[in-house]
Amino acid sequence: MNAEVLTPPPLTDPDALIADLGGRARGAAKRLAIATTAEKAAALRAAAGQLRTQAAKILGANARDMEAGHAGGLTAAMLDRLRLDEDRLSAIADAVDAVAALADPVGREIDRAVRPNGIELSRVRVPLGVVGIIYESRPNVTADAAALGLMSGNAVILRGGSEAVNSNRAIHAAFAAGLATSGLPADAVQLVPTQDRAAVGALLRAQGLVDIIIPRGGKGLVARVQDEARVPVLAHLDGINHLYIDGAADPAKALPLAVNAKMRRTGICGATETILIDRAYPAPLAIVDALVKAGCEVRGDKAVAALSPHVEPASAGDWDCEYLDAIVSIALVDGLSGALAHIDAHSSRHTDAIVTEDKAAADRFLSEVDSAIVMHNASTQFADGGEFGLGAEIGIATGRLHARGPVALEGLTTYKWLVRGSGQTRP
Amino acid sequence: MNAEVLTPPPLTDPDALIADLGGRARGAAKRLAIATTAEKAAALRAAAGQLRTQAAKILGANARDMEAGHAGGLTAAMLDRLRLDEDRLSAIADAVDAVAALADPVGREIDRAVRPNGIELSRVRVPLGVVGIIYESRPNVTADAAALGLMSGNAVILRGGSEAVNSNRAIHAAFAAGLATSGLPADAVQLVPTQDRAAVGALLRAQGLVDIIIPRGGKGLVARVQDEARVPVLAHLDGINHLYIDGAADPAKALPLAVNAKMRRTGICGATETILIDRAYPAPLAIVDALVKAGCEVRGDKAVAALSPHVEPASAGDWDCEYLDAIVSIALVDGLSGALAHIDAHSSRHTDAIVTEDKAAADRFLSEVDSAIVMHNASTQFADGGEFGLGAEIGIATGRLHARGPVALEGLTTYKWLVRGSGQTRP
Repeated sequence: MNAEVLTPPPLTDPDALIADLGGRARGAAKRLAIATTAEKAAALRAAAGQLRTQAAKILGANARDMEAGHAGGLTAAMLDRLRLDEDRLSAIADAVDAVAALADPVGREIDRAVRPNGIELSRVRVPLGVVGIIYESRPNVTADAAALGLMSGNAVILRGGSEAVNSNRAIHAAFAAGLATSGLPADAVQLVPTQDRAAVGALLRAQGLVDIIIPRGGKGLVARVQDEARVPVLAHLDGINHLYIDGAADPAKALPLAVNAKMRRTGICGATETILIDRAYPAPLAIVDALVKAGCEVRGDKAVAALSPHVEPASAGDWDCEYLDAIVSIALVDGLSGALAHIDAHSSRHTDAIVTEDKAAADRFLSEVDSAIVMHNASTQFADGGEFGLGAEIGIATGRLHARGPVALEGLTTYKWLVRGSGQTRP
Repeated sequence: MNAEVLTPPPLTDPDALIADLGGRARGAAKRLAIATTAEKAAALRAAAGQLRTQAAKILGANARDMEAGHAGGLTAAMLDRLRLDEDRLSAIADAVDAVAALADPVGREIDRAVRPNGIELSRVRVPLGVVGIIYESRPNVTADAAALGLMSGNAVILRGGSEAVNSNRAIHAAFAAGLATSGLPADAVQLVPTQDRAAVGALLRAQGLVDIIIPRGGKGLVARVQDEARVPVLAHLDGINHLYIDGAADPAKALPLAVNAKMRRTGICGATETILIDRAYPAPLAIVDALVKAGCEVRGDKAVAALSPHVEPASAGDWDCEYLDAIVSIALVDGLSGALAHIDAHSSRHTDAIVTEDKAAADRFLSEVDSAIVMHNASTQFADGGEFGLGAEIGIATGRLHARGPVALEGLTTYKWLVRGSGQTRP
């Protein structure tokens, strides 16, 4: 029985609901902002403990979601994202413990100066405040986002997908039970109590109540959030990433980089979607053949299509397509300048890479490519907060304001200026 | 004759106009992003030189604006803000030279790490891209904003007030003439060529074309921009700043701080608007008397009104009022906790200060007050980028994202991640 998903309760005043959640979150945020690192870590360890203790309850709730998902015709991929088992739940609890062990960004000094009049200035990191997370079918986001929010001193308001409603509630209840034993306010982690879509609209409009919205999910969700939100949004829409193989690339590096960047995992935002090969590069066919052999469909411009019968001709739309699949578009370009022009025209400004042994070419690429992450002789699949040593990430941002690239604890903070004087008045 | 101000040309397609300006600004921004510090500084010095060379033309244009302003019934304060003379114009040129001498934030490394797999990571500052500045009657903003934008590697689109249209055009023309001699693109600094208000609306909606909008002007302008903009906005709406005089304050510091924080300049956003005095503070009357003697109207709560016949009773609205005038509201509060509660309820989160000799009280105030700038034993009038050693400021931000407090060159930048490998693929 999953009546609630089928017939959500009518929501008469979504703005009032969000004002209530937001007001309570703001109150909790005040307490969290001055919580010590030890308090936050202890609360997270208690939450992780409850996720383990309440495993049977959580897996039971997930089984109800899976049953409804089967009945509702979710795809196999969606069901896989939704599904929990003991191992996956254990990994979720471990991830919460891992966040508890991360360095606390709050209170960290960014810089300091003493003015000629003796006034001491410093900028110190403080939490953003209230963070709204809107996500789809993966129930692990409930625990991940709550943990990252809490460790960075923020209150979070979570809104997961309808298909995971029972799983999310069970995970949230376990997390909250852990919090309750820790002395930090229960309102620090809230789950929107209705699946009515109007609540999402109200959350996106909640200027002053919510400081930032982070959507986690597919392009449809992110686009809708970016379009509707009046609250600032931290997100990326696309990962149309390029690997440029320069004429001065070492083929022994270029070939494995091309295969790894495209094929290691095709469904992640850091996967390469377009490979650009310098006309001066000696072995383009080997790149094409290696990709085909790895199971990749290759769509090429005329020059690439002429290399191999395995290459399909690319259409104009291919150069702006995020396949998230075992498909790649490949074009030959006129050297570094040709690559830069193509990337400028088609990149989604997430991650772009050059393969070359020419240091000057690498430096020019790193300088001129205007993307959140720019790489030299490395696979675009490294575009990940964990790989960057940030610990877990809340997302990857391709906007230009506030935080860019992988966003982890530091990206969930802002700063304030502390001014210490001894009675100075301004002349 | 100032026909254009009286009858602006009809603007048939404001979005197309802004798309044109924005596209050209984006192109210029690409060049600016890789301009060297020396190139940018030389361009600014050339612009400053042209402002001096073209002084007669600029002052003539300003005289036409002043004439129209008189005829149009501008207030004396507005006319004073509009008015240029040789000294003021010389100061504008000097300010451009001063920006040329500031440290360039672009290319500065924020941090660096080497991962266990040998990959080198660094975050380096890069320009935001295209900055829109919307301002009112002060023509100096045309040069100031252009200079700060250029030095931080950004293209700027300027939109000044109708009353200063001739002054702004003359200053912009001089600035552009300087740029033209420097080899940097003229499109780096553009002035919206029409005073039609529809162009402002289009600029505020120009997501993707403009990276950030900075309004410079009164509360009405800022509120309108914040309300209409779909592009991120960096601004402050109010400066409802508090000076809290703790029971453990040294009266020899508290009295001059209170007078300076309120009265040094009453019209700036860093001026104190409310003074909170601990009931335990021994000499509240001396504070009131000193303010009255300095020419300030004092509005007090019952306890303060009982101290002196010169105190008017405060109304409920006084605690949320930015007077920007020689008026102050004063309340007695129950110690630090009472002050924190009042500030939390009424501060606009710009600048708040405590006066005390009690280090623990100061530390708690600095930690718990959630404002962009929090001070101990210093006048709130120091809330200024110049006083903070940042050089000129483009504005003060009270939002929580991206930059907070005084925003100068660094606040006009973002960062990108540079990843340097030697062929690493992700396992």
